[in-house]
Amino acid sequence: MKFSPLVERLISDLQVMPGVGPRTAQRIAFYLLDHNREGAVKLGETLNEAMSRVSYCPKCHSYSDDGAVCSICSSQKRLATGILCVVESPADVLAIEQTGEFEGTFFVLHGHLSPIDGIGPAELGLDQLTSMLDTGDYHEIILATNPTVEGDTTAHYIAHIASRRNVTATRIARGIPVGGELESIDGSTIMKSLAGRSPL
Amino acid sequence: MKFSPLVERLISDLQVMPGVGPRTAQRIAFYLLDHNREGAVKLGETLNEAMSRVSYCPKCHSYSDDGAVCSICSSQKRLATGILCVVESPADVLAIEQTGEFEGTFFVLHGHLSPIDGIGPAELGLDQLTSMLDTGDYHEIILATNPTVEGDTTAHYIAHIASRRNVTATRIARGIPVGGELESIDGSTIMKSLAGRSPL
Repeated sequence: MKFSPLVERLISDLQVMPGVGPRTAQRIAFYLLDHNREGAVKLGETLNEAMSRVSYCPKCHSYSDDGAVCSICSSQKRLATGILCVVESPADVLAIEQTGEFEGTFFVLHGHLSPIDGIGPAELGLDQLTSMLDTGDYHEIILATNPTVEGDTTAHYIAHIASRRNVTATRIARGIPVGGELESIDGSTIMKSLAGRSPL
Repeated sequence: MKFSPLVERLISDLQVMPGVGPRTAQRIAFYLLDHNREGAVKLGETLNEAMSRVSYCPKCHSYSDDGAVCSICSSQKRLATGILCVVESPADVLAIEQTGEFEGTFFVLHGHLSPIDGIGPAELGLDQLTSMLDTGDYHEIILATNPTVEGDTTAHYIAHIASRRNVTATRIARGIPVGGELESIDGSTIMKSLAGRSPL
């Protein structure tokens, strides 16, 4: 792009976004320049504001603005359920909230135990989680980490902490997704689905 | 995202980009917040700067910074070729420049004739193109609009202007793309390819 160093810089900077390579970045840059400069300026301002102001809730570690306690953790009604749901990421909080079925509070690990990457209990904030369980405010902890080897390991580790504090640890069910077809599901999921069968 | 209005605004504003829906926007927002705040701030600043400063070259109508004549139009060597290549978009300029084969200058239409959308000769800057051909500086005009009905119509319209000024109008060749397979090419392309055959 020898005719405009700024367009070149825009194309290059757009590639900080996941899944955006040179060609997509070029398409986005040209589109914004030709069709939506106003929206792009607004996005630029929001990016700057969000990156400096969005922080983590000191209680659940999900996102919150300016480091405040988030609205879920501020709800006495939700705290009163005594149920804590442990997830790997804020996106998981969102996914669960969208069902509208869960009335307890959350704890976001921002990852899972992964010694090979140097991620141990401290990096996931498990000391804080332990203190929370020590308060006696919770009677159940739902382990909603991903059904992967790392997610399972993390769940077992936390379940062990919970059991020593008389908090019931439960694991979300593994099985055939609703609308899924048995013939296209992998063997280990079918095994979990059979093992977790329930009376009709 | 009731726990962070700012994250919600970020996800919404990211959707000004083409091809970015709610789910992709969420993935981008969470990725930037967790892994690359610095890059996101830089992108925000570049967006603001580019949207206010990137303008169009007064000669070729491709992008240029601060409304200056672009580097291609400033090149005496390129002007001296007397060859003008007409394209529909700045992306086309880039595609041709990347071949390194073309040594003339460009004229960007930013679209094609489309009466139904209210896009006529004036909207494409054809009055300015006509004045350029009037100078006698050009002996050939290459019509590199897209090989679509609209692109062809636009090319014919410009060829008519050129012919009355004794400027040779040429059209880029239509045919089988290099590496393409004959059996998977549509009939009209094969017809064009046969009609445009050349001796070996």
